[in-house]
Amino acid sequence: MPDLAHVIREISEEMAQRSDRGTVADYIPELARVDPKNFGIAVIDAEGQAFTGGDSDTPFSIQSVSKVFTLTLALGMAGDRLWKRVGREPSGNPFNSIVQLERERGVPRNPFINAGAIAVTDLILSGHEPREALGEILRFMQFLAQDASITIDERVAASEKRTGFRNTALANYMKSFGVIDNPVDYTLGVYFHHCAIAMTCRQLATAGRFLAHNGRIPATGHSVVSAERARRINAIMLTCGHYDGSGEFAYRVGLPGKSGVGGGILAVAPGKASIAVWAPGLDAAGNSHLGRVALEQLTQRMGWSVFGA
Amino acid sequence: MPDLAHVIREISEEMAQRSDRGTVADYIPELARVDPKNFGIAVIDAEGQAFTGGDSDTPFSIQSVSKVFTLTLALGMAGDRLWKRVGREPSGNPFNSIVQLERERGVPRNPFINAGAIAVTDLILSGHEPREALGEILRFMQFLAQDASITIDERVAASEKRTGFRNTALANYMKSFGVIDNPVDYTLGVYFHHCAIAMTCRQLATAGRFLAHNGRIPATGHSVVSAERARRINAIMLTCGHYDGSGEFAYRVGLPGKSGVGGGILAVAPGKASIAVWAPGLDAAGNSHLGRVALEQLTQRMGWSVFGA
Amino acid sequence: MPDLAHVIREISEEMAQRSDRGTVADYIPELARVDPKNFGIAVIDAEGQAFTGGDSDTPFSIQSVSKVFTLTLALGMAGDRLWKRVGREPSGNPFNSIVQLERERGVPRNPFINAGAIAVTDLILSGHEPREALGEILRFMQFLAQDASITIDERVAASEKRTGFRNTALANYMKSFGVIDNPVDYTLGVYFHHCAIAMTCRQLATAGRFLAHNGRIPATGHSVVSAERARRINAIMLTCGHYDGSGEFAYRVGLPGKSGVGGGILAVAPGKASIAVWAPGLDAAGNSHLGRVALEQLTQRMGWSVFGA
Amino acid sequence: MPDLAHVIREISEEMAQRSDRGTVADYIPELARVDPKNFGIAVIDAEGQAFTGGDSDTPFSIQSVSKVFTLTLALGMAGDRLWKRVGREPSGNPFNSIVQLERERGVPRNPFINAGAIAVTDLILSGHEPREALGEILRFMQFLAQDASITIDERVAASEKRTGFRNTALANYMKSFGVIDNPVDYTLGVYFHHCAIAMTCRQLATAGRFLAHNGRIPATGHSVVSAERARRINAIMLTCGHYDGSGEFAYRVGLPGKSGVGGGILAVAPGKASIAVWAPGLDAAGNSHLGRVALEQLTQRMGWSVFGA
Repeated sequence: MPDLAHVIREISEEMAQRSDRGTVADYIPELARVDPKNFGIAVIDAEGQAFTGGDSDTPFSIQSVSKVFTLTLALGMAGDRLWKRVGREPSGNPFNSIVQLERERGVPRNPFINAGAIAVTDLILSGHEPREALGEILRFMQFLAQDASITIDERVAASEKRTGFRNTALANYMKSFGVIDNPVDYTLGVYFHHCAIAMTCRQLATAGRFLAHNGRIPATGHSVVSAERARRINAIMLTCGHYDGSGEFAYRVGLPGKSGVGGGILAVAPGKASIAVWAPGLDAAGNSHLGRVALEQLTQRMGWSVFGA
Repeated sequence: MPDLAHVIREISEEMAQRSDRGTVADYIPELARVDPKNFGIAVIDAEGQAFTGGDSDTPFSIQSVSKVFTLTLALGMAGDRLWKRVGREPSGNPFNSIVQLERERGVPRNPFINAGAIAVTDLILSGHEPREALGEILRFMQFLAQDASITIDERVAASEKRTGFRNTALANYMKSFGVIDNPVDYTLGVYFHHCAIAMTCRQLATAGRFLAHNGRIPATGHSVVSAERARRINAIMLTCGHYDGSGEFAYRVGLPGKSGVGGGILAVAPGKASIAVWAPGLDAAGNSHLGRVALEQLTQRMGWSVFGA
Repeated sequence: MPDLAHVIREISEEMAQRSDRGTVADYIPELARVDPKNFGIAVIDAEGQAFTGGDSDTPFSIQSVSKVFTLTLALGMAGDRLWKRVGREPSGNPFNSIVQLERERGVPRNPFINAGAIAVTDLILSGHEPREALGEILRFMQFLAQDASITIDERVAASEKRTGFRNTALANYMKSFGVIDNPVDYTLGVYFHHCAIAMTCRQLATAGRFLAHNGRIPATGHSVVSAERARRINAIMLTCGHYDGSGEFAYRVGLPGKSGVGGGILAVAPGKASIAVWAPGLDAAGNSHLGRVALEQLTQRMGWSVFGA
Repeated sequence: MPDLAHVIREISEEMAQRSDRGTVADYIPELARVDPKNFGIAVIDAEGQAFTGGDSDTPFSIQSVSKVFTLTLALGMAGDRLWKRVGREPSGNPFNSIVQLERERGVPRNPFINAGAIAVTDLILSGHEPREALGEILRFMQFLAQDASITIDERVAASEKRTGFRNTALANYMKSFGVIDNPVDYTLGVYFHHCAIAMTCRQLATAGRFLAHNGRIPATGHSVVSAERARRINAIMLTCGHYDGSGEFAYRVGLPGKSGVGGGILAVAPGKASIAVWAPGLDAAGNSHLGRVALEQLTQRMGWSVFGA
């Protein structure tokens, strides 16, 4: 059994030196300003011990990684009723594709493509003011990360709102099929804001612990979701968590994971660890390039793949 | 830890009584004649002990389950060169869709949809006579299943050849993009025949053992593939093994698995067991209905999901 | 040469009695309230004589028929620059499809599908207030119809705005590719309003005269567009004027025509006549059912098809 | 009224000098050997007088232009029953697309895309030997062109057969939906051969006369089809005759026309003339580039557009 601290240190050093860093997302102007040199990693093992490397305490925009937590929250509120609004199959299309929505009458393929995550946000919003719903999401993140200082980066939210025509198209399109209940502006307002939550790798890895441990937070014994639900969320992360690069992530890393265009990835090694990495440069499918490379090395050296030691 | 023999017995009894049995595949006339009442299961644990239930010794047409083994064989012959011909992403489309091929210039999304499996077969065929290639595939199956009596059901192969217009379309379409090297008839001949291999659940579970044990057959110590390759094949099975029902299978069963329209499923619990089930009735996505139900119960009761205990 | 007045009378009588009337559009609530029993027809021949039948003086919502006139207006303002924003090929998809937009990076296939007409409206709007642009469109209609009493039905416009999620999706989608210049709300506001112009068959046939006579209004000698441009607008009407029923309309009627979901159709017999029909019930492709039937009889009996006597 | 002989001469001279000649089709090896410098034109007016220019007596491979004649023949044999096998809407896709076939269960959109023409050929073949069906098509061409010397270029047919994987895919795909009755090899054999008919511009213009004159051959008084059917075939040529460039052809030329990848175009000016042009270089949509340019000049100068003088 290799020494985790040593492995993290070596990976961090290698990542700092690599020149293949991908391309920082440019479609949200605020995100385009992030330095591609950043790299951070945090691993929290079954005993709750944290191992970190690089810029693990620098906050970044978690973007679509937030969708794991909104899905968890919405399942708690709506239960399996949620699956009438969203499917759970890989899409075979880019993250912001609208083609599939036309073929399947406005029902998004899964909760991790943009359309699906917007539909999930709409469920959380039901019967609330946007401000309340957003407060609930933020408090849930703070609770899971055990850190009340986590906030929303308003500039990123505003930047996304100003330029989010494609997400506005997706939401209106679903609305035309009755898949969105609330006013489109309300739903998108909450969506853009929860994507703009800023967190560090350490906070994110902490927040993901319940997924690695059958729904419970080992440190507190608190049960966030049932063991079955934790498994199922992991399953959706594995098949759909990296858009049209999900197969590649499963093939190379072998863990459930969810990426965001801010360059973050949350990965889960069931029974073993919760992991967060951050490297802003993206690959062609919109996933963190060095984040994936780092996770590939980590799982290989630690024998953490769910597909065999 | 529940008693596996007991669990298998209970599942077999329940499956024998269920009335929701799906629909037997009717597009291959020979398969349409199979009795939907059949149900078999075989589990071989890490120590090599076999636990069986129902019709576990009745041979059935393994159909697309064979694609796991042709992929393994082709990777041995061509290595990563194979990935120039076939992708490894879920398709988001039915098993026999041709739409994606037009968009991606003849390169199938993964080796488990029909087009991808035909491209894999074409790689195995390269430089051989169809008869030789087919012999090699059959001997590989016999070797893995440790049973030289396994044969091809010629009536099924002939039935598939007579009616396989859609597969002929896929193969010619790929040929027009240069993705198929050999004469289309040769490649399809081998493809139709390896899909027509007949095996029992016991044989199939035996053949799948190397995937559960890091590429090695524990009984003999023989290494079929490297540990990394075994993990990767498992990853592709999990993300792509059930066509457009792969997300659902991951969500409910939580194991890498590969289905066939004959009603068989091979599933892999890494480090724990190799599992084969057979129930001829299919669901809307073309996967064995009761096979999936049985596996869901098995993994739940045994705590075998790769996504958490 | 048959007597036109007689033919019109016979067609009007037959249409009044037919029971196959199609289905009134229900996706815009205001339109759903129109009585499907209505039928009107007006033909204005080369000499300017009007022949009418049925409810030819009842105003109806011209909806997409307005797109012929906004295209004419926009071509006058932007010239061939317009074709950088919009194509001129039949779409092979329903009128409100978004699939093609994804494949062709936000550029609609032609100016008569919804997306294309919205892009045309956006060109007219450029540098104006919505109110001004709308005024210009309305005055153009009044001028062509030689009737200053033509107005916009504000209830229809409001109804469309409240329920126009799919058009909002299309506009935002194009905006994300830079095909829409103005704020989406402005462009859609003008679009919804010009679709809500109410006209009678007599007014509409009068307005279409320039298309039948090489761009000129024979009565006044006024040249609206060049002869070449008139031909080209007619060509686009013929290939794209009836959404995914354009081939059928050409096959049966043999004239350039443009339909609207209000049940109106403007058809052009070059050199011979300008024709407007109205019957609110639609066929599966969203075109007036009896409107098409009436035009088929008219062209057949008068020998007006552009494809032969 | 301009002098037709003079116009033809000027066009021929200009076309001989132009350097923008498009690209000769390279997907059929035999066609790739044709000299792109060729240009021919033949116009036969209502009185039967022929006006020619350039290489109007050089035979070329008519390819898809033959589809006008097989459609005519098949309608004579099957009548409106044909429309159960083939639609009559523009496809919105390239000539050899298979995507639409999947969406519409194997029924091609129109008789002029490859899939549709193969389905039409299959109807002609019904109950005959391939040799007989082909003889019938060839005799029909010879009769219409009043020239018994017209033959099939066997090298082109063989070349097409050897490389026609995409057409083989289309045919098998339709066969899987029951849209093709005969053995795929038989149908494709006839299809490849009738596409390989070699004709001169003069012969082709002669053969198309019945379409310009309400179904009758003026010279002989022989009625090939009814006036209604002639109009309808012209309508389909106008909306679908140039694949995904049909809108462009209607917009620029304004006549029903059918192109072939050999560089030929047959165009019909109803009541006025039958026209054939040939220039081997193709545009991006697979239609003769200079052929279209020449026709645009011809119709503009002669005032022959069906959309206005």
